Amino acid sequence: MAKFYGIGTGPGDSSLVTVKAVNTLKNLDILYTPESKKGGESLALSIVDEYLPESLEIKSRHFPMNFNGTEKIQVWNSISGEIVEDVKKGKNVGFVTLGDPMIYSTYVYVMERLMDDIEVETIPGISSFSNIASNQNFPLVMDTDPLIVIPCTMEEDKIDEALEKYDCLVLMKVYKKINMVIDKLKKHDLIDHAILVSNSSQDKEEVFTNLRDEHIDEKISYFSTILVNKNRNKR
Amino acid sequence: MAKFYGIGTGPGDSSLVTVKAVNTLKNLDILYTPESKKGGESLALSIVDEYLPESLEIKSRHFPMNFNGTEKIQVWNSISGEIVEDVKKGKNVGFVTLGDPMIYSTYVYVMERLMDDIEVETIPGISSFSNIASNQNFPLVMDTDPLIVIPCTMEEDKIDEALEKYDCLVLMKVYKKINMVIDKLKKHDLIDHAILVSNSSQDKEEVFTNLRDEHIDEKISYFSTILVNKNRNKR
Repeated sequence: MAKFYGIGTGPGDSSLVTVKAVNTLKNLDILYTPESKKGGESLALSIVDEYLPESLEIKSRHFPMNFNGTEKIQVWNSISGEIVEDVKKGKNVGFVTLGDPMIYSTYVYVMERLMDDIEVETIPGISSFSNIASNQNFPLVMDTDPLIVIPCTMEEDKIDEALEKYDCLVLMKVYKKINMVIDKLKKHDLIDHAILVSNSSQDKEEVFTNLRDEHIDEKISYFSTILVNKNRNKR
Repeated sequence: MAKFYGIGTGPGDSSLVTVKAVNTLKNLDILYTPESKKGGESLALSIVDEYLPESLEIKSRHFPMNFNGTEKIQVWNSISGEIVEDVKKGKNVGFVTLGDPMIYSTYVYVMERLMDDIEVETIPGISSFSNIASNQNFPLVMDTDPLIVIPCTMEEDKIDEALEKYDCLVLMKVYKKINMVIDKLKKHDLIDHAILVSNSSQDKEEVFTNLRDEHIDEKISYFSTILVNKNRNKR
């Protein structure tokens, strides 16, 4: 029976796709790809490009990244409607999404709109923070410590609270918030236990391991993440 | 130059290994595999078995799972010493570890003991919680919410604090703690937003989606995880 597959592509390097994702892509009839700009390139598509069958039909769809709730909802409704129609015609349909589909991915909004109508299989992907940690040989969390993942778009007092309470943290979406975040890391005595990586596993990767002294440009990449582990090297 | 590779195998299904891990395994001379019981099977080895070259030398090593610190440290020292020797002889040496190498993995203790002496490359893997979330089409976290991953071996008051404060949680190592955890999920009004999965992506997978009413055996598997998302389906 025809099915819908949500496929995590991992963070950027084509070899960080799973074998399951590769096998699934090879058997698709149609692939939906998200574009953040109209007519722009899809990063998720470029990651899986080498695994796609020749016969595949690619349907690029624009996902608005602004905060206009009504426009977003219309887009999600329209794309999920198209996908349901394709699957009901007997086509195996895929949707590629950066990183892991269940961690801060727009894929979820599409999935939730179609899962009552058609069969859905989601294939996990390597998250950006997991990739950064491995690339830097930087243990995220061990033993009985908790790990907290924070989008820096969260309220500032909640960020403070987490930095106060926890030793192992992933700070995502630091873009535009970098000065605030660096100040808070200093305040909570975490700055010497932190690293910042931009564009992990893509071209132009930048790694900052000394956040206290290095100059971090305010215009760092949209894809920038900070890892903190206060208990690293205490073993 | 010869190198040491720490390789995340993902949660259990051989197809959830990355293409990079497969390519790396094919070029190894020696593979170290962790056994939790002396002479027992290595789950990590069984996951990657189909990708191993015929010429590969496999060195199974026993990792004690008890709380005897001295014994553990002796084992980590001894195994990392062996690995350094092999790499210095010009061998490409791998070490396989379940899930992701940087999230609660003993691999880190070996890595930290040898990274000053030889070149280390760590390859990320799909974590068990990421796999469970995708398998169940269960969004872990969206938008400006934080995600907290908690080992239930943590102090009880800290578990309470996290359940009180956060909406999106992963509860790991619930084995032996299941009654305590279920009680706390009820107390914090999270029980109807939680699912429990045992042995994800392995034989005998069990999924419990109604933790309020279903009977959960106290003898659940060692590999059991609870996902909580209080904001799921609110969009």
